[in-house]
Amino acid sequence: MAVGLEVLKNYHPVKGIRIGIAQAGIKYQDRNDLVIFELAEGSRVSGVFTLNAFCAAPVQVAKKHLSEADTRYFVINTGNANAGTGPQGMTDALVTCEELAKLAGVEANQVLPFSTGVIGEPLPMTKLLAGLSPALEKLDSHVWPTAAEGIMTTDTLPKGYSQQVMITTNEDSANEEIIISGISKGAGMIMPNMATMLAYVTTDAVIAKPLLDVMCKEFADKSFNRVTIDGDTSTNDSCMLIATAQADMVEISSKEDPRYSAVYTALLDAFMILSHAIVRDGEGATKFVTMEVQQAKSVQEALDVAYTVAHSPLVKTALFACDANWGRILAAVGRAGVQNMILEDIDIYLDDVCIVKSGARAASYTEEAGAAIFAQAEITISIRLGRGDVTERVWTTDLSHEYVSINADYRS
Amino acid sequence: MAVGLEVLKNYHPVKGIRIGIAQAGIKYQDRNDLVIFELAEGSRVSGVFTLNAFCAAPVQVAKKHLSEADTRYFVINTGNANAGTGPQGMTDALVTCEELAKLAGVEANQVLPFSTGVIGEPLPMTKLLAGLSPALEKLDSHVWPTAAEGIMTTDTLPKGYSQQVMITTNEDSANEEIIISGISKGAGMIMPNMATMLAYVTTDAVIAKPLLDVMCKEFADKSFNRVTIDGDTSTNDSCMLIATAQADMVEISSKEDPRYSAVYTALLDAFMILSHAIVRDGEGATKFVTMEVQQAKSVQEALDVAYTVAHSPLVKTALFACDANWGRILAAVGRAGVQNMILEDIDIYLDDVCIVKSGARAASYTEEAGAAIFAQAEITISIRLGRGDVTERVWTTDLSHEYVSINADYRS
Repeated sequence: MAVGLEVLKNYHPVKGIRIGIAQAGIKYQDRNDLVIFELAEGSRVSGVFTLNAFCAAPVQVAKKHLSEADTRYFVINTGNANAGTGPQGMTDALVTCEELAKLAGVEANQVLPFSTGVIGEPLPMTKLLAGLSPALEKLDSHVWPTAAEGIMTTDTLPKGYSQQVMITTNEDSANEEIIISGISKGAGMIMPNMATMLAYVTTDAVIAKPLLDVMCKEFADKSFNRVTIDGDTSTNDSCMLIATAQADMVEISSKEDPRYSAVYTALLDAFMILSHAIVRDGEGATKFVTMEVQQAKSVQEALDVAYTVAHSPLVKTALFACDANWGRILAAVGRAGVQNMILEDIDIYLDDVCIVKSGARAASYTEEAGAAIFAQAEITISIRLGRGDVTERVWTTDLSHEYVSINADYRS
Repeated sequence: MAVGLEVLKNYHPVKGIRIGIAQAGIKYQDRNDLVIFELAEGSRVSGVFTLNAFCAAPVQVAKKHLSEADTRYFVINTGNANAGTGPQGMTDALVTCEELAKLAGVEANQVLPFSTGVIGEPLPMTKLLAGLSPALEKLDSHVWPTAAEGIMTTDTLPKGYSQQVMITTNEDSANEEIIISGISKGAGMIMPNMATMLAYVTTDAVIAKPLLDVMCKEFADKSFNRVTIDGDTSTNDSCMLIATAQADMVEISSKEDPRYSAVYTALLDAFMILSHAIVRDGEGATKFVTMEVQQAKSVQEALDVAYTVAHSPLVKTALFACDANWGRILAAVGRAGVQNMILEDIDIYLDDVCIVKSGARAASYTEEAGAAIFAQAEITISIRLGRGDVTERVWTTDLSHEYVSINADYRS
């Protein structure tokens, strides 16, 4: 069902990154469900985590370890989220780090754990721990496609990104080449502030840690925090940005560095593609929708409108039905909580077709024109509020029978 | 699909209320789609209307007329909401009132218009106006069941309430009898602040207008503003409370009147039953769910949690699947935006079965016990936050395949 999503087969290895994959049998048999990232010494690691008040044990441990030491390993399991598991869950996450640290010869707080899957069931520790050695034994820099598959849950397709980027500056005729490769997972429960999604973007670029932290936060806000499938925010979302610093270049340590903007753009592209991939593979998705709000007074009001429309089950079912029901869009705009909004100032476009003009059906609009746009797999809905000059975009999907089926059957 | 909803066949006529019904052919042929209420002179009328910023033309006109004059007629059409219809929509709503006023011999502002149905299409005025005379000619005090059907849109069953109530007080041995009869409609796009729902509660009790206004607002807040099916708020919601003052009693003009509390309770019951009926007939509903939040610090935080859980598509699909997936409930509580919530303080009950204790699965909980509750058509989910002593309840439904079908096919 994924909309416009192709499986990436060729990844550029990133110097300083090796990946080990194993079948631990945590929930399902005969599939990879344990992925270990090894980050070379000297790697800089930044992360953005879920804002759900009840963040899962692995998230709590990952945040703590990230703040304490230089990270050398990620250990990612699927099939079980280790969330809502109480004190035992914390112990399990810590023991996972300790065991991997022992095997790898590092400190426990140099390991960050990540879990995704069913909430509220204890992590099957015996199986998980037994998978660590096999995964470590197979560490390899060329197994990205398998890693992308190994972190999937209800995803129908693996999600990856890889680019070789030439960084050129006017001042310096010598080009520098960097590699960016990353993977992500997630298909439902996706919503601002990092729903059940995991993302790992790696580069060999040499970027100072403080700058990397700023970039990671900004990228997440523009990408993973702007995608929504069903409005549910998971307890486990984590988005990691790793710079191994192995490329042949002088460190970029400030925004004033002439190479900064090119590196920024290249890394942001990875975040955008990997976050949109999650929407494209949204549970039951038949549409990839860009919800754009223009002419807002503030970022907050633009987002309030965009999310209210994007979360409206009536708008989402109309999208599924290929029914350009602009009345439902307008009604959702009206209940977004924006003060003193004036109906007569609202215009709405489907791609470049004006469907609502000054708060009522555009005279030029025809059902045929609307139906033609809604028949497309990718649509941009632009809502112009006529109040200011702020534009914001979020990305979402429709609500289909398949969504209900997937989520009504998930645990069975 | 309606859950625990029976069709009311016997209504007590309310002195001072006559109803006329016609087939105007506004959208569908061969069904009643125009209902006129005639309120006897001296009736007191209160109303609560949608908070959607883009309230429909009839709502704007009804609010204005209600504030200007003593209301004598309601004119209600289904099939077309006259919303998102621009200046023409306002003209159409006004002309409808003017024409009815002419026929009935009252002023135009003594008529309140109500419309429900498709948004954004012009009201077919010729048909609507042609239906006024036939409806007026049939004014009758015994046609409540037909009126309940006449205001339906996607409702599968008509919704009504009727009681004869003896008002007794300790001070006064003479009993007074009042009649309460009402109807409501709505099945989707139901959400706090009056989604596509219309409700008309009438009584012959003699209640002073200022007191009736207070009661109507309080009742709506406890009932229609606490039900949610899909989170969408309509542009047309209206909830009217009419006291015709024809009962044989001295006017109740203050809360200190010893009869006040009995009348209050009786009228609130009508609002509760009529609002819950809308949830029971929610589009595709297979469950009637009471979402109760206890031990909150404030009403707002209780409602934030209750609505976040009630609107979660993941919780709603789990309800549809009869899957007691408490992890999804807990995750929704966690993203409700309540500051400094402590996971370890949270308990969750399904009816009287404790499923989450101190933020983790209760030791006493069994999947069998949870499955038994979730197999019921009516469920109470109680979430105890351990923060204060405020309790709030909202009522909602599950999210089924049928919901998607209904809303994906509505316009076709």
